[in-house]
Amino acid sequence: MSYFDKHVFFCTNQREDGSACCGNFAAQKSRDYVKHKVKELGIASEQNRIRINSAGCMDRCDEGPVIVVYPEGIWYTYVDEDDLDEIIEEHLKNGRIVERLKI
Amino acid sequence: MSYFDKHVFFCTNQREDGSACCGNFAAQKSRDYVKHKVKELGIASEQNRIRINSAGCMDRCDEGPVIVVYPEGIWYTYVDEDDLDEIIEEHLKNGRIVERLKI
Repeated sequence: MSYFDKHVFFCTNQREDGSACCGNFAAQKSRDYVKHKVKELGIASEQNRIRINSAGCMDRCDEGPVIVVYPEGIWYTYVDEDDLDEIIEEHLKNGRIVERLKI
Repeated sequence: MSYFDKHVFFCTNQREDGSACCGNFAAQKSRDYVKHKVKELGIASEQNRIRINSAGCMDRCDEGPVIVVYPEGIWYTYVDEDDLDEIIEEHLKNGRIVERLKI
């Protein structure tokens, strides 16, 4: 049994040389948004332990901004808060993969 | 199939208020050590894709410094490079859990 049921990592890496990186897409702000929203909605529980983490570069820069949900190992990209809301509602709350955002 | 076969996250969070955190235990240096060592040993391959990541606080501060290996969701603590070498050789190279370091 995994310590967290949904351990989400947002790449928040910011490169300074102008090359592609998730940090160019407000990744830290998006991570903070999801962390706050999960708390606000109260969807984490003993049966659905959720952790919203920041992380360094996860080496999928060209597909960024990216997140990965473990232990299932599902990767997503996102554009805006609507996308993040869908991931929260579908995947984090109901355990359903959001195919349209999957990479 | 997971994008990475061994996706390792080192908590490298540094708190400034003096409370327990992985950053108090040279976590960033340890992450850099493992990343370098995995490359030097050449143990990553198409059949054993390894990524050594840094991450923010993973909420197990009192047990720190901590790392987690996904998708299997195995958590470790470590003291020194001998511990890290054992995790590299046993878990990352050979897929065997290091029970003595598991948390």
